[in-house]
Amino acid sequence: MLLLFCVMACLAPGPPAWSDPPPPFDFDTGYSPIEVIIPNVIPAIYQSVSANASDATLVLRVTALITNAWFDAIAPYHPTAVGVYSDLGRQPAAEHTQANQNVAILHASYPVLVSLLPQHEPEWRAMLLSVGLDPDNPAATAAGIGKAAGEAVVANRERDGMNQLGDEGGRKYNPQPYADYLGYKPVNTAYELRDPSRWQPGIVTRGNGIFQVQQFVTPQMRVTLPYSYDTPNRFSTPAPVKSRLRGAGGMRLYREQVDEVLAVSAALTDEQKMAAQLFDDKLLSLGFSTLHATFFNGLTLEEFVQYDFLVNVAAFDAAIAVWNEKYKHDAVRPFSAIPYAYRNRNVTAWGGPGVGTVTDLPSQEWRSFMPTADHPEYPSGSAAFCAAHAEASRRFFSGSDVLDWTVPFPQGSSRIEPGATPQSDIALQWETWTDFETDCGLSRLWGGVHFMDAITAGWDLGREIGGLAHDFVQAHIAGHPG
Amino acid sequence: MLLLFCVMACLAPGPPAWSDPPPPFDFDTGYSPIEVIIPNVIPAIYQSVSANASDATLVLRVTALITNAWFDAIAPYHPTAVGVYSDLGRQPAAEHTQANQNVAILHASYPVLVSLLPQHEPEWRAMLLSVGLDPDNPAATAAGIGKAAGEAVVANRERDGMNQLGDEGGRKYNPQPYADYLGYKPVNTAYELRDPSRWQPGIVTRGNGIFQVQQFVTPQMRVTLPYSYDTPNRFSTPAPVKSRLRGAGGMRLYREQVDEVLAVSAALTDEQKMAAQLFDDKLLSLGFSTLHATFFNGLTLEEFVQYDFLVNVAAFDAAIAVWNEKYKHDAVRPFSAIPYAYRNRNVTAWGGPGVGTVTDLPSQEWRSFMPTADHPEYPSGSAAFCAAHAEASRRFFSGSDVLDWTVPFPQGSSRIEPGATPQSDIALQWETWTDFETDCGLSRLWGGVHFMDAITAGWDLGREIGGLAHDFVQAHIAGHPG
Repeated sequence: MLLLFCVMACLAPGPPAWSDPPPPFDFDTGYSPIEVIIPNVIPAIYQSVSANASDATLVLRVTALITNAWFDAIAPYHPTAVGVYSDLGRQPAAEHTQANQNVAILHASYPVLVSLLPQHEPEWRAMLLSVGLDPDNPAATAAGIGKAAGEAVVANRERDGMNQLGDEGGRKYNPQPYADYLGYKPVNTAYELRDPSRWQPGIVTRGNGIFQVQQFVTPQMRVTLPYSYDTPNRFSTPAPVKSRLRGAGGMRLYREQVDEVLAVSAALTDEQKMAAQLFDDKLLSLGFSTLHATFFNGLTLEEFVQYDFLVNVAAFDAAIAVWNEKYKHDAVRPFSAIPYAYRNRNVTAWGGPGVGTVTDLPSQEWRSFMPTADHPEYPSGSAAFCAAHAEASRRFFSGSDVLDWTVPFPQGSSRIEPGATPQSDIALQWETWTDFETDCGLSRLWGGVHFMDAITAGWDLGREIGGLAHDFVQAHIAGHPG
Repeated sequence: MLLLFCVMACLAPGPPAWSDPPPPFDFDTGYSPIEVIIPNVIPAIYQSVSANASDATLVLRVTALITNAWFDAIAPYHPTAVGVYSDLGRQPAAEHTQANQNVAILHASYPVLVSLLPQHEPEWRAMLLSVGLDPDNPAATAAGIGKAAGEAVVANRERDGMNQLGDEGGRKYNPQPYADYLGYKPVNTAYELRDPSRWQPGIVTRGNGIFQVQQFVTPQMRVTLPYSYDTPNRFSTPAPVKSRLRGAGGMRLYREQVDEVLAVSAALTDEQKMAAQLFDDKLLSLGFSTLHATFFNGLTLEEFVQYDFLVNVAAFDAAIAVWNEKYKHDAVRPFSAIPYAYRNRNVTAWGGPGVGTVTDLPSQEWRSFMPTADHPEYPSGSAAFCAAHAEASRRFFSGSDVLDWTVPFPQGSSRIEPGATPQSDIALQWETWTDFETDCGLSRLWGGVHFMDAITAGWDLGREIGGLAHDFVQAHIAGHPG
């Protein structure tokens, strides 16, 4: 019942309001990740990491490390499982209770959350106290196990390559958490597209008159420690030939993919606009589909923790490989390529919020329906995350592709066109995980942030890594991590 | 009494909390700008324009246009005054009441606020309704006068060069309010200081792992319409010779001013740190000193409106001239010059929040105590604004230099070093306007964002414009705007 309550709340579009006082938590029957932890973590991520949960590398690392702590914390209560970063022995079968699992999960979350989101430390403390646990005094065995599991995740992950502490590259003073320490420099400036095949940082604003230039977010994701493989160099994506002006197809292919983005932009439906918004938000798309599948399949707490960690490993490890490829190909985004291909000419496309399709849009005034994120174009991260997530889900659910997820969008609930889009209440439905990954990938074309080839490449890369993530988590469940 | 209440609340450091329910507004004796309008405008500016009110061009234009509307709205209730953008006749002497002035001021504010901060429109409406005025139905004569005065300010200022509507440069779709439409491009990138004399955009973050590159904020301020002179080209500042490596002094002078910034950084006192924070915030420094002087000198409502408009003209017109010079000189900031002058060497300086002075700071890890704003260094805007403000104040108060302003800072109230600075409760005091402008200018050296020569140049430029602003406003009060 509680799970149903939460899932229903979670599926509402937009950042959910957690204003209703939650019912008291029942350790024997409850799901602490869903009822206690996620409702506290989601607002903290929206507030302190990413306002729309669209900054994938930063958001996914937070959720991966938290679910990692849960998995490791309850491994001692499973017949065979071992943690990724701790091996805390095996508790007697009589101790394999949901109450002990919940205690371990909550105590494991605390050190990880304090490490990742230290500015919210009072909230993490209050979160444990709200269910009667004292973060400073893990008296029960389960509490000690949880605390040790969480601390081991922190110890192994604080220096995983992402520069969480801000001192990588030998920095001694004024730490810069998550700053690039490998020295990526774009070949293009925001003002001049010197090489029309390569990434150009965009100019962004929060609408207050301050404009800033994008910087490639966390390029060091490519050297960050994966869970399920040794090095992202084992993967490769085909070169983005249509973006390569010096290639065989030259301007013809370059314009071909530009024209595809423009044609989509000119014919956007309400369904496409809302899908683009949903899949831009990694918590709403990846996170809430996980909760839906958990409820739909009636998972136990233990199964949920294993499944949630699995899909997080899948997306996180996909992100590392995607960033490795993004860095390598350094490909141009549509917002740069469109004015290059149609210099000083008008195009037919979406004319901006509330304006609809116009036929006299100066190419340099085109904008993508969704904001274009701050990293090179090829391959699509979202396509890869969703494919990894879908493949991991299919594997976890014994090959079943059934998803059966419906997300309602009330009239006017668009963030880009508030009040106007969608024109009436609509609902998007995904019958299968294959539908989910397909629409997720395509939504990046609808959103105007990707060319089609980047989406195809993302799907392929993600699907492969989803399988590796499954093997990795299953090996830990079986107690043979290899 | 109400005025005293507000001024006391205003003088608390940090964005003030307006949580106490205000007493009902008395039209016959009250000061609607201070009791009704400012308490609503301040949070809107902090929220939607500039989180620390440090983005001077954007903040000052908002306050200048609002005070302009107040001035124009009550001109018909003065024996001789005429508005800047409207001449609405002269009301009979019997109508020259404070109640009519308040009604006119409130109705004049509404269209200006809706134009400048349209996302807060419901608040502006509620603000008028809260004192019994209907923004849609300006029935009384005073209401009609106010509305007409406000609308004239909007009509004359929407296209004053600042690109408020976002369509300057012929833009047809996707308006970009306040975007540069003149095409400024920095010669340096954030990654390479090609010319160590010229401005380099900094890399900034809100601490969430996203880093962005600065863009020169509103370079079009230099072509924006001034109030008190025809063109900023009539002013000039001496060249920033110490920043010019190719000049006579070369590296010796370059390092001389770098060393001055480092020496100050290494010896920062609590008083300097809190002054740097106060003067960084244009609402707290310029705005609240105005309120203090109003109370201290017992100004009538009419005198307050004239004085507040005067100091706003002074700072706004100073900003136009400063931006003209900043664009011309395009000078390097300390954060770039320090690592250039001490490449791969350690320096002695402030080592970051809570760290104090250290002797082994790698020069590239130095940071300014206050964040360095997103525009070229020379001359100092703050020094110019404060000097213009001080000179205008001296002229308005018949040559008196007396200010007598004390601002308390509780222990630990620093935004940069919360909890730690100041080490105990302190108070800063400015006996005279001369002290105020001196400390304001020097605070930019203490804050590490300016070299000394930029401050001197700012003072000189600002003082001259403060006098022009006085002449301009006095001519409008006398009814001979010329």
